[in-house]
Amino acid sequence: MPHGERAPLTDSALAVGVDIGGTTVSAGVVDPAGRVRRLTQSGTPLRQAEPREAEDAIVAAVRGVWDGPEVAIGVGAAGFVDVGGRIVRFAPHVNWRNEPLADRLRARLGRPVHVENDANAAAWAEYRFGAVREERRLLMLTLGTGIGGGLVYGGRVERGAHGMAGEFGHMNVVPGGRQCECGNRGCWEQYASGPALQREARERLLALARPVTSWVRAGIDRPEAVTGEGVGELAQAGDPLAREVVAAVGTWLGRGVADLVAALDPGTVVVGGGVAQAGELLLEPARAALHSHLSGRGYRDHAPIVLASLGPRAGLVGAADLARLAARANS
Amino acid sequence: MPHGERAPLTDSALAVGVDIGGTTVSAGVVDPAGRVRRLTQSGTPLRQAEPREAEDAIVAAVRGVWDGPEVAIGVGAAGFVDVGGRIVRFAPHVNWRNEPLADRLRARLGRPVHVENDANAAAWAEYRFGAVREERRLLMLTLGTGIGGGLVYGGRVERGAHGMAGEFGHMNVVPGGRQCECGNRGCWEQYASGPALQREARERLLALARPVTSWVRAGIDRPEAVTGEGVGELAQAGDPLAREVVAAVGTWLGRGVADLVAALDPGTVVVGGGVAQAGELLLEPARAALHSHLSGRGYRDHAPIVLASLGPRAGLVGAADLARLAARANS
Repeated sequence: MPHGERAPLTDSALAVGVDIGGTTVSAGVVDPAGRVRRLTQSGTPLRQAEPREAEDAIVAAVRGVWDGPEVAIGVGAAGFVDVGGRIVRFAPHVNWRNEPLADRLRARLGRPVHVENDANAAAWAEYRFGAVREERRLLMLTLGTGIGGGLVYGGRVERGAHGMAGEFGHMNVVPGGRQCECGNRGCWEQYASGPALQREARERLLALARPVTSWVRAGIDRPEAVTGEGVGELAQAGDPLAREVVAAVGTWLGRGVADLVAALDPGTVVVGGGVAQAGELLLEPARAALHSHLSGRGYRDHAPIVLASLGPRAGLVGAADLARLAARANS
Repeated sequence: MPHGERAPLTDSALAVGVDIGGTTVSAGVVDPAGRVRRLTQSGTPLRQAEPREAEDAIVAAVRGVWDGPEVAIGVGAAGFVDVGGRIVRFAPHVNWRNEPLADRLRARLGRPVHVENDANAAAWAEYRFGAVREERRLLMLTLGTGIGGGLVYGGRVERGAHGMAGEFGHMNVVPGGRQCECGNRGCWEQYASGPALQREARERLLALARPVTSWVRAGIDRPEAVTGEGVGELAQAGDPLAREVVAAVGTWLGRGVADLVAALDPGTVVVGGGVAQAGELLLEPARAALHSHLSGRGYRDHAPIVLASLGPRAGLVGAADLARLAARANS
């Protein structure tokens, strides 16, 4: 059955998951095995959106995939979400500041709503349905506009004392380093993310001070034309300069992972998000950097770094599954 | 009853705790309320000791406090200890490399022995008997020769997938920074520890290029005469230069804590170890640095930084208590 068709979905264990990104809102009906049974994606950009606008987009997305009997609804959003899954303290894309999102959506949709940090939701999906199923200490990184982070420890999303665990992207890796949107300097996500890929590539082009034939052929005729996606595609096509750029970002990825391995000693580190589409071109240098920056190497085992297996739908799948479990626990 | 006297201790719930430091081996009989009922301390320096020598010192320390009926024995040691509490993978002071310490000690002492990382043991003691009793997410730092770290999450010592969680001192805070004993550069413990206090003070004296009267009076007549303890004492006596030095180290402490708060969002951060004797002179600048380096400040709550309350005996108290619980779980 292709996505979008309206065959009746009646399984009472279904749940709806919503993923709120900077550029799209996706919603899907998810079954208990983590399969997406129906999917919608709106192109409404929510960058700097007001709360009401974002709510409208979420409500429309949910109604776009589901009009059956009552189901649990899970919403994954970038930002700080309180431990109870009700209030968004702060979000980077939408203008949510201490927003009681779960209650507002419940009032409009008439169903229980669970809100989760998007990277926590993705980590949960990988734990439940992905390549690292049942890992007892899973640390997930989603590399996109920034670094999202999630921990699933002992079969639970570890949200921290205030719901804010997993903000790995704002660990300081270079004192006084690159300016971050958060107001600080030297945050890890300034060195290992989509924008970092773009920045690294631009700096190299500027330093070369001449166009690179293969890049020009791909439409990148000047530093300003570089995008993270463009670099990723060139790298996968075998372009040596693009591979160097991806490797440089992979090295920063591995250095930060070394800090997390020192602090947390996870069982597996899973890397997802758009930047992870570079695959081994990113992970090989990350593993090398992890190995060379890890204290006590030679006398200790450490987590492997592996690719996420669920792709861009992980967030909505995890949000739906967490909502289903929360609804079951409350019933 | 003064420590060291040999009144009969017969409570079957007693346990013996041993703490192996770089300069001393301490052992104590610990009751279920965490009180030390008998204590011995040997001055045997174990720096670079061979395994047999260290074992002899542990056996002598245990026999020095206990010859009653069978009790559980807990050993806290700096280093990497496997998750099962049996094997020391690597230790900085003693030449233990994949040493089956628990089994060797059991063979010589005829009683069950549980081995634990010393900072984990101290964290456990603070959780069970200290000022942060029952904190659900406790992160402990012990500032001494290096930074020891322990996590007690959800009522359990979180040891990580391979027993190596909590190695916070080897998180990289300055790329290419100060050389660390571990072989890397820029590890946090090079900036926030006893040796860091000493180094910071020496650099300031060198920069001043003249003796400082109050320091000379305290016996510090040249940079080489500086010790971390000496600086701490001067700071507590109100010396402005010494206070600046302690504050500089406190600032580094807070910067690293900001990374840990971003990653883990603990409920309380507890700081112990010798350097923590500087008290608020260390913690106030640490809190200021945490606040100014934390991403999302203003939209989030975060853990307070508090002083440990059990002092230098925390390690042996925690090791004894963990051994008692392990013995009970196995019986």
